[in-house]
Amino acid sequence: VILGIGDDAAVLAPSAHPIVVTCDTMVEGTHFRFDLSPPRLIGRKTLAVNLSDVAAMGARPRAALLMMSLRSDLERASFDGIAQGLLEIAYEYDAALVGGDTTRTAGPVVLSVSLDGEAMSEPLLRSGARPGDRVYVTGALGESALGLRILLDRPELAPAHSEVVARHLDPTPRVAVGLALTEGRLASACIDVSDGLVQDAGHIARRSGVSMRLELDRLPRSAAFRAAAGALGLSDWLTPLVAGGEDYELLFTAPADRRVPESLAGVPVTKIGECHEGLSGEVTLVASDGSELALTRKGWEHF
Amino acid sequence: VILGIGDDAAVLAPSAHPIVVTCDTMVEGTHFRFDLSPPRLIGRKTLAVNLSDVAAMGARPRAALLMMSLRSDLERASFDGIAQGLLEIAYEYDAALVGGDTTRTAGPVVLSVSLDGEAMSEPLLRSGARPGDRVYVTGALGESALGLRILLDRPELAPAHSEVVARHLDPTPRVAVGLALTEGRLASACIDVSDGLVQDAGHIARRSGVSMRLELDRLPRSAAFRAAAGALGLSDWLTPLVAGGEDYELLFTAPADRRVPESLAGVPVTKIGECHEGLSGEVTLVASDGSELALTRKGWEHF
Repeated sequence: VILGIGDDAAVLAPSAHPIVVTCDTMVEGTHFRFDLSPPRLIGRKTLAVNLSDVAAMGARPRAALLMMSLRSDLERASFDGIAQGLLEIAYEYDAALVGGDTTRTAGPVVLSVSLDGEAMSEPLLRSGARPGDRVYVTGALGESALGLRILLDRPELAPAHSEVVARHLDPTPRVAVGLALTEGRLASACIDVSDGLVQDAGHIARRSGVSMRLELDRLPRSAAFRAAAGALGLSDWLTPLVAGGEDYELLFTAPADRRVPESLAGVPVTKIGECHEGLSGEVTLVASDGSELALTRKGWEHF
Repeated sequence: VILGIGDDAAVLAPSAHPIVVTCDTMVEGTHFRFDLSPPRLIGRKTLAVNLSDVAAMGARPRAALLMMSLRSDLERASFDGIAQGLLEIAYEYDAALVGGDTTRTAGPVVLSVSLDGEAMSEPLLRSGARPGDRVYVTGALGESALGLRILLDRPELAPAHSEVVARHLDPTPRVAVGLALTEGRLASACIDVSDGLVQDAGHIARRSGVSMRLELDRLPRSAAFRAAAGALGLSDWLTPLVAGGEDYELLFTAPADRRVPESLAGVPVTKIGECHEGLSGEVTLVASDGSELALTRKGWEHF
């Protein structure tokens, strides 16, 4: 960063590497609520979801811009908390906040961040998966969805299940994993799991022109996920696991002969399936008995 | 642009030049109204105000991201018009729309754009003015403010004064002028006039540690400005001229021995004052009789 906040634009040093650029918006009432989340965590998450996109490209975060449209009745402390949280996570991931714009709105608060990053090696795209490639996911799935369910339906459970709640309110972007994937030229395609496993797998499959089979028994379910599902008395735990979204884990593919470690940058990596020729974009969930599962109104069921 | 819309992030080619980054937000009801402006012009202006910031750095626009928070009752045609207008002006200024995020809001529409550009030569900052430097402005001032006044107070005048109305609804970013300034190493400091001449002159003066004296009789008033002021029956035309804002002209300084042409990239350039030692950030308006003007509740008056 040559010049930060205070001029008509910020100035960044030239880069010998390709630049990745992304943006994400969070709207009060849709993406966050002040009664469910401290402003600091709202600020953190606003940048985190962008860091996750840069991570999915295998790039190093560099400079962020913050656009805030605030209600006039919003307390000063809320504004300060959002800014503090955003600066905090920017520092943790070595990104600089170089500018922004603050406006008033009569409606819900709208927070947008745009972020650029440097792709030190070849950027990881969604389009590189090939038939025969294995499918991997980092960390654990579904915790964020259960955390949100607890906050909305059973807030009294939150203290005992703070881990899954934190996964929803304060997600961890897998920046170091993305860098390890691209530096090691391990992955053929990559995406961050924001919409939900099956949907995001579909994004890779469609852009790559392959189909995917994912094995239900291999999907990483953490002890915290099991405990929260139990406490909520969920009859269907598969939907939050594969369609909950906001996991911000990395889902990636790699050729079968590529040796993918069991963990990258300290984060567990699980092989969950395989790419095939066939209907482009199709994602099939396979149970342990070999039967295929389909999404119905009641959740996921055997065909 | 190596990769546009459709992945976790867009990918831009490496650049041997410094990158400038900027963003601006427009909120329905504050910055635009659907009853005053066709959606296409709202889209154009959303990018134009960012192009103007890049112009003020003397940089070449490159890639834009568009964040739209839309009301669910907004007609599809409004969305299409905004997108069309934005793509249109992006094309005109050789910028690419490489990504974005569309969300729903229960409140006013919020449109944000972030834009990056390449500084082919040394970027133009606000901080480079020195005592003795001359002060210049491009084009004409105050038209946008009168255009807004007509739209709000006397819409029946709009057809006869379409030029000033267009200056408000569809401003022209001075990109080619900014590039000419930096390529010719003409300017010591530069800003775009978005807040109003005196306020933006103050930004340069403060950041440069100088004071400025601007000569009232030299301020460029167009025939269209005079005609609109007459039609509106304005007793105070100085306030829209020097404090109206949204002119999106470039205000710049240059050393006294630098030969600044009377026009740059086809846009008239007018010398309007001089930088001095003295109270940093102070901007004084001087009348033809040498008296100084001050802003009062009634507008600008002699001391």
